[in-house]
Amino acid sequence: MQTPAFERLETLTGKYGDEGDKLIFKILRRGEHEATGEADLALRYDMTVPLARVVANHGSRLPSPYKRYAMGPVWRADRPGKGRFREFAQCDVDVVGSASPLADAEVVCALTDALDAVGVRGYRVLVNSRRALSGLLEVYGVPAELGGGVLITLDKLDKLAPEQVAAELVEARSLASGIAEALVGDLTAADAVERMRTVLEDSEAGRAGLAEIGRLLRFASPKVGAERIAFTPSLVRGLDYYTGVIFEVVAEGMPGSIASGGRYDGLISALGGPDVPACGGSLGVERIIGLLGDGEGGAHRLDVAVTVIAEDAASEVMGFAARLRDAGLRTEVYLGGSRKLAKQLKWAADRGARFALIYGASDREAGAVTVRDMDSGEQAQVAVDGLEAYLSERRAAFHSAR
Amino acid sequence: MQTPAFERLETLTGKYGDEGDKLIFKILRRGEHEATGEADLALRYDMTVPLARVVANHGSRLPSPYKRYAMGPVWRADRPGKGRFREFAQCDVDVVGSASPLADAEVVCALTDALDAVGVRGYRVLVNSRRALSGLLEVYGVPAELGGGVLITLDKLDKLAPEQVAAELVEARSLASGIAEALVGDLTAADAVERMRTVLEDSEAGRAGLAEIGRLLRFASPKVGAERIAFTPSLVRGLDYYTGVIFEVVAEGMPGSIASGGRYDGLISALGGPDVPACGGSLGVERIIGLLGDGEGGAHRLDVAVTVIAEDAASEVMGFAARLRDAGLRTEVYLGGSRKLAKQLKWAADRGARFALIYGASDREAGAVTVRDMDSGEQAQVAVDGLEAYLSERRAAFHSAR
Repeated sequence: MQTPAFERLETLTGKYGDEGDKLIFKILRRGEHEATGEADLALRYDMTVPLARVVANHGSRLPSPYKRYAMGPVWRADRPGKGRFREFAQCDVDVVGSASPLADAEVVCALTDALDAVGVRGYRVLVNSRRALSGLLEVYGVPAELGGGVLITLDKLDKLAPEQVAAELVEARSLASGIAEALVGDLTAADAVERMRTVLEDSEAGRAGLAEIGRLLRFASPKVGAERIAFTPSLVRGLDYYTGVIFEVVAEGMPGSIASGGRYDGLISALGGPDVPACGGSLGVERIIGLLGDGEGGAHRLDVAVTVIAEDAASEVMGFAARLRDAGLRTEVYLGGSRKLAKQLKWAADRGARFALIYGASDREAGAVTVRDMDSGEQAQVAVDGLEAYLSERRAAFHSAR
Repeated sequence: MQTPAFERLETLTGKYGDEGDKLIFKILRRGEHEATGEADLALRYDMTVPLARVVANHGSRLPSPYKRYAMGPVWRADRPGKGRFREFAQCDVDVVGSASPLADAEVVCALTDALDAVGVRGYRVLVNSRRALSGLLEVYGVPAELGGGVLITLDKLDKLAPEQVAAELVEARSLASGIAEALVGDLTAADAVERMRTVLEDSEAGRAGLAEIGRLLRFASPKVGAERIAFTPSLVRGLDYYTGVIFEVVAEGMPGSIASGGRYDGLISALGGPDVPACGGSLGVERIIGLLGDGEGGAHRLDVAVTVIAEDAASEVMGFAARLRDAGLRTEVYLGGSRKLAKQLKWAADRGARFALIYGASDREAGAVTVRDMDSGEQAQVAVDGLEAYLSERRAAFHSAR
């Protein structure tokens, strides 16, 4: 299922956190309403909210569970940087209509399968849970009204020094300094995972979070490999709509994540639909391409360069080119302004052509075409009817001789 | 070469005619500037202007001539209707840096090749020239300042009755009624092509137009077929940027054109670049798909439905699924909430699965999995190690028996 590039503005706002809302590209109303300077549509920020909007409106026409993949551009009004673009491509997989922890594991496995298939090496899957984060706030005594802001700041632990994060928690988030230091200290300790496993047992939400993290690790490990997937207590993910497990895939040499996702059981009902559980994940295509190196390059040698000496023969020459292309030969016709053969043969050489076709007055009289071997300079007159066969054979001989 | 979905607003305005300008989706300025209600960016309206913008800014880094193809969505704030969408896909081919009439012919042939390849039948290529249209206005004595509006109205001859068009020329375009009637009468006469071939000889622009139309017909005919391409004197094309030959491809059963294009020698310099000739054409993907019918459908039968009876065995079951998928078997894991085997086997049947996997306590003890043939109901216990081989063989036997 493909959704359009833009959605109604109100569908997108309030789904991506305060920071995300500012990064939405908004489309001006049209026609007589343009003068109001108001926006009614917006470019999609991700593939998840548009999917949830379709399920909210048309879910009864979809199978259940509904699995879908989608590939396409998304837009964020961000400052461009390494691996950060205003337009970039996402490749998503989602399972709508299943509350099973196996669905979360299937999503993670599909993404890592794709990474393996394109040749990304050395990535790691970081796993946490929104329930575990609720438990964390509860256990450390963070006032409920500060919770959202505290999590946004804690999300910076992968970029800022612990003391910077603690300072921001106090200054920007109004958190008591004792709590801030305890939180940051425990989350950045060498044994942070063990501390969290212990501490979260004191909260019902924390226990539920640990349980769902444990299930995802267990069910995804046979495919992903237990050494590549781990509970990461400081992982937050900025988007508002997650309700259960969340994950990010990170790789050396690329800032940020190359894939991410989680469970968003409340999103479809928030968009006016029924209460349908869902989970999904997204591959960041440009970042993944950035990890892959340059590959083999795509420069194939041109088979035939077709010269055009006389305009009155141009339509016959175009006919030759059409036949050679139909026969699978990579063929180009000279499109420059010169009628001089020497200049056109230089073009053929510059294009790396294996053969050049020349169709002069004597060729025409003989019902033939002159074929020039661009490597040896040898020329042969070939009957028009046998042109494809001759060139296909010569090309095959060239390939088998290499 | 791929260009982004949006361009600077001023790049797009003034390129598509007055009607076209109104159909541009504009993006609101962001951040502190959002409150101004002004737009600075706009969604691309076609693929041609973005290409010309890149050539204007970075042309020296491109080969010459530069041939490119591009596929992707474009956006128009139009009222949706049959074959008319606010978002639709175009597939373009362009040749930049060649003034040769062979380049125009190559573009037309590439588009008709693509139509042939996907199986479109019974299309026709309509050809005209902006120079011929200038000659037409001159010969019929249309005042220069009325010319643009007159052409826009003449473009409706394929939709409106001749008298409606003549009336619009007088009322909306202020053309003298004698001229309006002569123009419409000659363009809609049974021998309109012959009349125009004669009439246009009286104008220098008209002669140049006839000559370039003649070349395109001659050079494209060997490939396209002379019976499928014709001079069409009333063809205008709404876009402002064409300077030479223009063409549209039409097909029975689809309103409007399924492909179109022309020569736009002035566009790159209008965007601040050097004076570079260029031509190109575009396939309208949704309209072409609309002509093709429904095809074979994509419902492939599921090979293996994997049941999950006990959660403590779920990670082993996920491992089986991963191995079967790696072996190329279409495999799904049960993601519903029930733990009852009967219910899960009903799911397997509903999914059309050929086999179901069952992994119960006795299977686990035996190091085996039970495979149920969903057609016959027969069950066999298969050693875990041999699972892929067993199922691949059974599937192959099923296929060869059909």
